[in-house]
Amino acid sequence: MNQDYILSISCPDRVGLVHDVTTFFKNHGHNIIELDQYGDRHQSRFFMRIAFTIEDSEPENLPEKQVKKMISEGGPVSPGVDDPLTSLRTFMDRLNNGTEWELHSTEARVRTAIFVTKESHCLLDILSRSIDGELNVNIPVIISNHEQLRYIADRFEIPFEYIPMNKENKAVTEARQLELLEKHQVDLVILAKYMQILSPKFIQAYRNQIINIHHSFLPAFPGSRPYHSAYYRGVKIIGATSHFVTEELDAGPIIEQDVIRIRHSDSIEDLKRKGKEVEKNVLSRAIWNYTNRRILAYGNKTIIL
Amino acid sequence: MNQDYILSISCPDRVGLVHDVTTFFKNHGHNIIELDQYGDRHQSRFFMRIAFTIEDSEPENLPEKQVKKMISEGGPVSPGVDDPLTSLRTFMDRLNNGTEWELHSTEARVRTAIFVTKESHCLLDILSRSIDGELNVNIPVIISNHEQLRYIADRFEIPFEYIPMNKENKAVTEARQLELLEKHQVDLVILAKYMQILSPKFIQAYRNQIINIHHSFLPAFPGSRPYHSAYYRGVKIIGATSHFVTEELDAGPIIEQDVIRIRHSDSIEDLKRKGKEVEKNVLSRAIWNYTNRRILAYGNKTIIL
Amino acid sequence: MNQDYILSISCPDRVGLVHDVTTFFKNHGHNIIELDQYGDRHQSRFFMRIAFTIEDSEPENLPEKQVKKMISEGGPVSPGVDDPLTSLRTFMDRLNNGTEWELHSTEARVRTAIFVTKESHCLLDILSRSIDGELNVNIPVIISNHEQLRYIADRFEIPFEYIPMNKENKAVTEARQLELLEKHQVDLVILAKYMQILSPKFIQAYRNQIINIHHSFLPAFPGSRPYHSAYYRGVKIIGATSHFVTEELDAGPIIEQDVIRIRHSDSIEDLKRKGKEVEKNVLSRAIWNYTNRRILAYGNKTIIL
Amino acid sequence: MNQDYILSISCPDRVGLVHDVTTFFKNHGHNIIELDQYGDRHQSRFFMRIAFTIEDSEPENLPEKQVKKMISEGGPVSPGVDDPLTSLRTFMDRLNNGTEWELHSTEARVRTAIFVTKESHCLLDILSRSIDGELNVNIPVIISNHEQLRYIADRFEIPFEYIPMNKENKAVTEARQLELLEKHQVDLVILAKYMQILSPKFIQAYRNQIINIHHSFLPAFPGSRPYHSAYYRGVKIIGATSHFVTEELDAGPIIEQDVIRIRHSDSIEDLKRKGKEVEKNVLSRAIWNYTNRRILAYGNKTIIL
Repeated sequence: MNQDYILSISCPDRVGLVHDVTTFFKNHGHNIIELDQYGDRHQSRFFMRIAFTIEDSEPENLPEKQVKKMISEGGPVSPGVDDPLTSLRTFMDRLNNGTEWELHSTEARVRTAIFVTKESHCLLDILSRSIDGELNVNIPVIISNHEQLRYIADRFEIPFEYIPMNKENKAVTEARQLELLEKHQVDLVILAKYMQILSPKFIQAYRNQIINIHHSFLPAFPGSRPYHSAYYRGVKIIGATSHFVTEELDAGPIIEQDVIRIRHSDSIEDLKRKGKEVEKNVLSRAIWNYTNRRILAYGNKTIIL
Repeated sequence: MNQDYILSISCPDRVGLVHDVTTFFKNHGHNIIELDQYGDRHQSRFFMRIAFTIEDSEPENLPEKQVKKMISEGGPVSPGVDDPLTSLRTFMDRLNNGTEWELHSTEARVRTAIFVTKESHCLLDILSRSIDGELNVNIPVIISNHEQLRYIADRFEIPFEYIPMNKENKAVTEARQLELLEKHQVDLVILAKYMQILSPKFIQAYRNQIINIHHSFLPAFPGSRPYHSAYYRGVKIIGATSHFVTEELDAGPIIEQDVIRIRHSDSIEDLKRKGKEVEKNVLSRAIWNYTNRRILAYGNKTIIL
Repeated sequence: MNQDYILSISCPDRVGLVHDVTTFFKNHGHNIIELDQYGDRHQSRFFMRIAFTIEDSEPENLPEKQVKKMISEGGPVSPGVDDPLTSLRTFMDRLNNGTEWELHSTEARVRTAIFVTKESHCLLDILSRSIDGELNVNIPVIISNHEQLRYIADRFEIPFEYIPMNKENKAVTEARQLELLEKHQVDLVILAKYMQILSPKFIQAYRNQIINIHHSFLPAFPGSRPYHSAYYRGVKIIGATSHFVTEELDAGPIIEQDVIRIRHSDSIEDLKRKGKEVEKNVLSRAIWNYTNRRILAYGNKTIIL
Repeated sequence: MNQDYILSISCPDRVGLVHDVTTFFKNHGHNIIELDQYGDRHQSRFFMRIAFTIEDSEPENLPEKQVKKMISEGGPVSPGVDDPLTSLRTFMDRLNNGTEWELHSTEARVRTAIFVTKESHCLLDILSRSIDGELNVNIPVIISNHEQLRYIADRFEIPFEYIPMNKENKAVTEARQLELLEKHQVDLVILAKYMQILSPKFIQAYRNQIINIHHSFLPAFPGSRPYHSAYYRGVKIIGATSHFVTEELDAGPIIEQDVIRIRHSDSIEDLKRKGKEVEKNVLSRAIWNYTNRRILAYGNKTIIL
């Protein structure tokens, strides 16, 4: 049976990379569906995303995690010498020093955990786009430090884990959160207006797998209460930013931004209302790009292929 | 002969202001063409802009400066007791404590000085919109600390004053600049990519009459080289901001902002190119609003009526 | 107890209207919270929206329908001669020939029926913004000609009326729909991707109370399959339009429009996905404006105050 | 001496095209600077743009026209068997049936004629961006059926050809225009608010080399007076469209579009003013893409690489 995959590559640039990769695919008879690449001259770095089909691939429907693990650990994907995934791994190992790459089956829904606090609009938008089929996610758990949004989880029949948090129990709370992520084999963590700061340990465990939505046009108005700041500064446009979470607050690689025009007559409440729409769009677009394996992060920037 | 005026009012709010002002206009038979007002609940401040006609007004074509001066200094506008402008002044004096107001004839072109350094795009856009009739300005002088753009001034037949500047002669230079503004009875100063910081003395002399264009979406990336900063930060949208100049760098009341989407493949040069378009639009829109007396500045914000 | 109202006025323009209305409010001691007006010179028509407070108003919490009815039918609102609503009615009757006006209490949630077919995104967005408190609506019924979206109505605990439709039973179906709207005292009908054409009779019964979302930037691509048309025409931007429904298809007064940029690589499916986001935003913004009584329709245009 | 070229390819799609092209470049040692491709699944068509360097190329600074002619006519580019341009031609001939391709040196400025009538804003914007170095154009002639804009041509020291036009002399006028284009070896014709319809003969002579700006968001409001139509239709957003001219009015392949939000209070004059800004941006961006050989037209669509 045929199987569709997405391969993403990030490596130091050198002459002939496109040629070498396309030669591999031609020689192995894999049909390329989509091919996009970008060479960053400044960082001398090459990025590529290939959507392709392997015919008669075995085994069918390999779980996402298993594919990645077998590939990365170098063990046999399947016993045969000519196994296509093993060949791919061998090829990637020789492509260039410092090559980072990922292979994902397009069959598997991305296992996603959503962290929330009290605001519902981003959560509702993600769940809406999920049941609509737009977002290719499987949401095994919603985690919150408050009970307010449990009723939404219930309506969408998703387990809701209430883990109260205070200054004293932060380490315990995070341990419990990480345990849940591990248990549910989570690939993507969404901070959908989760108003807490994650520890470096948490962030390192899910490097470039945690997407946050910040309700300002970063780097303007980082930190708390950006709509208040925007109001008092008298800006004419407000925005929102989705980004990967790094150890530095609101400073991770930006995935998507958008803005909306405001008027002098808009109150802080109006800014919040208008901003919510931008927030949820900007967050959901980032998730869509993630689930389609279109985001390649390098340094503090993202390449969207 | 009929004469059109624009009256703008900024005063502490109280009940009945719209009623009181419209009653004055009704009683004096002045026809209101446009009426816009806004009450800022937060600052308890009232703002109003009225475009109106005075029939058979004397004298015709009063120079802008003269109208404002006669009004502000309280002397007779014309000898008659019932003179409409004198009546207006009397009415405004009684409207409310702390009332600020301005009266402008719509006949007069706004006397405008443009300050430039080496970049031509904003200058060219202003001159283009001026000969096109879009901007109701009269430009008696272009002032620069470099010679590069003299050829543009020549092409548009506008006097070009080259005043070289260095760290030592800044006070002398500014004195010469202020002298020119005084001589040409300038109402509006445009910093069209003028890469110098004005002294507090200069700024105070033309409070809310100096418009600067900054090539970022303020408050993101103030100061120098914002496109470089935007590139390294990896933002997905860049912008520009026109604002009144205050003593604090890039922190004055914002008049207009706009943005343009960029891609990961855009170099710093691409950002500059895309940004130029936004810069000139955002600056020229601010000038249009100024010449139509639509900008009311209060505290660190602008009301656009 | 105090009561907040919104008065909207549309009448032939004449000199002194703002003065006359503000005089009425001053004389009766009603505090104006927000005042916006617009004079359309082309149509010589005046539009005004006033949000105001009546102190110690009786009776408290008058139902929306009752207020409008008492006002429009001319009967006593309450027995007293000085009753503020009766005074208002008397004043409005004398304001100008051809005056149309409405008075709404801000207490009452707007009774809203949602019509759907199979697509869920607009419905989910409205319900999400409703439970979030952004949209001040009370949704007594969701009506559909298909069963697909019943599960969403169930999750949000809103009665779902399935009324199958075919070419033969259209009149019967509409009669049943109108019966439901009457029974639930519906003030606003939302066609949230309801892919059926309403009869003139239906439209006349709810003139300027039916809001449709069309998935194109009207007047481009009216009718069916606009994303297909946009794709084949090769446009670089797509959009959506919310409008009041009139007898002519996709030609009613436009309330709100927005757009999103597309790329040559976007398929029709990509256009649908990107367009959905615009559709739901544009529809929900129209509903927000309606519930805040900010939309004044005249001829084929809307004034948003 | 090194020489930079841009190669653009449009051909029926087949497996392995990227591989084959990159193999050619690798084998010949040409360094690829930028590589972008797109496979249109719907039309089964492949598009590619490659910016590359040929080292020690002879002759230096080949005129644009000469390169294209030698390549297309199959004669020797230079006597040597291994001449890089001859090799390229041979390779392209064998790539696929129905391949269309172009090769351009990046040295040469694009020879551009501008057609105008009475409106100056687009002309001024193009000339401004040209002297600014943003647009890599050489403008040997401005052609007009009116005298109004001669003063602008004079200021920018560009020959202005006034060719009056009426219903009777259209054929003669066009003959004179084509003569001028031929004489000046024009590669690009810009209709910068040229309010005349070109004949099919003219259009065929410069297929996909004539760029028009239309002052609406096509396909909305084709033909004359789109701002009037937009005003009376009551749209909330207006736009502009730059496109290649085809035999059908306002129906050619769209290159770029953009929009600007308007308000109910905007008059037709306001629409024109706001629209002008969009028009000139949209036209100049199209020219920039053309001069950078980024536009590949196929059927009625453009691919921007």
